[in-house]
Amino acid sequence: MNASSSTPIRAIDVIRKKRDGGELSRAEIEALVGGYTRDEIPDYQASAWLMAALLKGLTRAETAALTDTMLRSGEVLDFSDLPSRKIDKHSTGGVGDKTSLVLAPVAAAGGLTVPMISGRGLGHTGGTLDKLEAIPGFNVNLPVARFRKVLETCGCAMIGQTAEIAPADRKIYALRDVTGTVESPFLICASIMSKKLAEGIDGLVLDVKTGSGAFMKKEEDAAYLAELMVETGERMGKKMAALITDMDQPLGRYVGNSLEVVEVLEVLQGEGPIDLCELCLGLAGWMFFLGECAATVQEGKQMSRQLIASGAALAKFKEMVELQGGDAGVVDDPKRLPRAQHTLDVVSPASGYVTAIQCEQAGTACVILGGGRERKEDSVDPAVGFVLHKKVGDSVTKGETLCTVHYNSDVRGQRAQALLQESFQIGHAAPAAKRPLVHRVITKSGEKN
Amino acid sequence: MNASSSTPIRAIDVIRKKRDGGELSRAEIEALVGGYTRDEIPDYQASAWLMAALLKGLTRAETAALTDTMLRSGEVLDFSDLPSRKIDKHSTGGVGDKTSLVLAPVAAAGGLTVPMISGRGLGHTGGTLDKLEAIPGFNVNLPVARFRKVLETCGCAMIGQTAEIAPADRKIYALRDVTGTVESPFLICASIMSKKLAEGIDGLVLDVKTGSGAFMKKEEDAAYLAELMVETGERMGKKMAALITDMDQPLGRYVGNSLEVVEVLEVLQGEGPIDLCELCLGLAGWMFFLGECAATVQEGKQMSRQLIASGAALAKFKEMVELQGGDAGVVDDPKRLPRAQHTLDVVSPASGYVTAIQCEQAGTACVILGGGRERKEDSVDPAVGFVLHKKVGDSVTKGETLCTVHYNSDVRGQRAQALLQESFQIGHAAPAAKRPLVHRVITKSGEKN
Repeated sequence: MNASSSTPIRAIDVIRKKRDGGELSRAEIEALVGGYTRDEIPDYQASAWLMAALLKGLTRAETAALTDTMLRSGEVLDFSDLPSRKIDKHSTGGVGDKTSLVLAPVAAAGGLTVPMISGRGLGHTGGTLDKLEAIPGFNVNLPVARFRKVLETCGCAMIGQTAEIAPADRKIYALRDVTGTVESPFLICASIMSKKLAEGIDGLVLDVKTGSGAFMKKEEDAAYLAELMVETGERMGKKMAALITDMDQPLGRYVGNSLEVVEVLEVLQGEGPIDLCELCLGLAGWMFFLGECAATVQEGKQMSRQLIASGAALAKFKEMVELQGGDAGVVDDPKRLPRAQHTLDVVSPASGYVTAIQCEQAGTACVILGGGRERKEDSVDPAVGFVLHKKVGDSVTKGETLCTVHYNSDVRGQRAQALLQESFQIGHAAPAAKRPLVHRVITKSGEKN
Repeated sequence: MNASSSTPIRAIDVIRKKRDGGELSRAEIEALVGGYTRDEIPDYQASAWLMAALLKGLTRAETAALTDTMLRSGEVLDFSDLPSRKIDKHSTGGVGDKTSLVLAPVAAAGGLTVPMISGRGLGHTGGTLDKLEAIPGFNVNLPVARFRKVLETCGCAMIGQTAEIAPADRKIYALRDVTGTVESPFLICASIMSKKLAEGIDGLVLDVKTGSGAFMKKEEDAAYLAELMVETGERMGKKMAALITDMDQPLGRYVGNSLEVVEVLEVLQGEGPIDLCELCLGLAGWMFFLGECAATVQEGKQMSRQLIASGAALAKFKEMVELQGGDAGVVDDPKRLPRAQHTLDVVSPASGYVTAIQCEQAGTACVILGGGRERKEDSVDPAVGFVLHKKVGDSVTKGETLCTVHYNSDVRGQRAQALLQESFQIGHAAPAAKRPLVHRVITKSGEKN
């Protein structure tokens, strides 16, 4: 008697077991999730299971088995023939978060390979692919062979999800989206990690956002997800670190696809706002540490500073843009990027201090301008967005400009202006305590920050 | 602005609200469940909602709204022009439970109208329709007009579910069956009550079984469901009572469709085993009390005794059989009922007392004989079953016959014999405490038993 002659696992029994709080075996998870991906199990059984999993939770072993099943549902890239370490970074999404565009060239300039597969804007948050596509000609839809070629040549490449990678995630995510089963840390973890681990990486730095502009508003929820992802990655033999970082106001000063590329260039030229620069250095430091290019995270940060100061990181960015078909001329002349036709200012109604910028609302303002999508099929206007002149803690006088809206449609411009006006809170006193940029670091890889 | 111009309720929001433990409004339940029944909402959203409802529970108001939505999904019979009270009885299912066939004619003989819509055997339990069909010619598929005519003429009629009654329940039940969402008292309540209330009744007596042969093995689970159904019925303006009754061993001495009709005739002739007679009198007493034919349940019981003693109930049974196309000759000559070709005895392996009869196992023995269905599409053999000579508490000597199997297939007969042998437990001492026949009564209608 061999295993294949044993009774097949029935979907209904797996659903019932999870419903009753039992722990599923790897074989049971494969039977349900693998069977669903292969169209052997209907939507209605998968959705009942997803709801049971959301409400009853998954153990660490179940989460790893789910991630692995989803990972193996498609192609797993293999760059093991490339000599350097393959390290990626993933963010859970925020407003003004353009760190990926800085990190990939910095890490590649420092000797890592960064096979980055990214996503598009979701809800009020921006997406790396949308930002890259603001660069005229930049192609995020490379076939795997070309992706490999770019990686071999310049050490970093940034593309979108392909049909071959983790098809289970695509199918399951679409079902979760319409069955109220998105908001489960276990399912979120499996979704993110299955796609990231399919990149053939050795290690991953996670940027898990928390605050008013993050999907996880509460720090404990962000930390729970971060721990889950770190443990899941480590179970699967990857070097992992997660930084819980602040998303209680937009990151940096520029929000909007083209505008964010401008700010990326500033950072790569050794300029740019302090919060964005600091976060990029921190994340890059961890990438170098996990990739064993640096003995400590501090050393990795120092490396990153030097790679920016020397112009090596900027040159790497230019090389990648060129290899992916983009107009590399934007690096020296950012005016070649799409620009909005009009601007409008949001001014302070009173003198005092900026005590808060409601960050989800600010992100929504960018979506309203056309810089994000209200529906999946919407196209994105790369030119629109806004520039913040004041951030939390800054003093303002009545009538002073808080931010400038870049728009192409009057109606959208006015709606965004009103929303941004609302999102700024002005008080008499400066906010007592400044929120830290990095709330905490979760890792088991030996370094504690 | 009228209600119809407001934003339509989205299924996803109703799923999320239940998932997060919120209480749904009637409009939200109608949007989801009504929409599903009208094929406007897909299976996968309905199943996610069902799982959330199972795991998070429903409030009494939600349960009533769900019942009402399912009830109104189809035809609601209206017998309000018939002068007498319409009272029905429903049992959650057991082994040897043939009370419906006794109660309908007793209640009708006493002046009530009993528009009984019944089901078939499910799992190890028997079904009223299968028992009725053991009577040659008996037609359980009457059109509504004929059902009404029989009711008007003789006061009771017994038919099967029609396509017009509670189609929502049929669709939802089929989905629950394959998504692990059967075992919810709230969903069970709505399923039962929507069908029963569609009968156009004024009151309902519930016989909720508990013990080894019941679907709810634990008394507290049976009581919880009973309370839920009583409250739901009362919210909808019906007179309700639920008796939690014992199903820890088969009811009466005969199990199997044709055999059970024989036992029904015995009871209607003033004979029959004490447990079955007592339960019939108790349930009939409550039917007369709820139908205001008797001032107390005791008075209703007394009425029932007299209706049996006078032969009025038996005459009513004969009338109903005739009106529904059955061979009324079986009443005077039960030998006209189908009889199995062979019998086999199960004998006691030791002297002592019967301490238990594992009742689900005994019910399964009848299914194995062909008296029930292993799959929905199976046909039923009316002739097979078994007769118990010993019940729990009876003394036995080694080699004495415990029960006799009636069978038509040797293989099946032997399998059933073995299973029945196993189901009998023989001990040295009589069981200490006898389980009561009626564990408790749940009602808010003023009478406490």
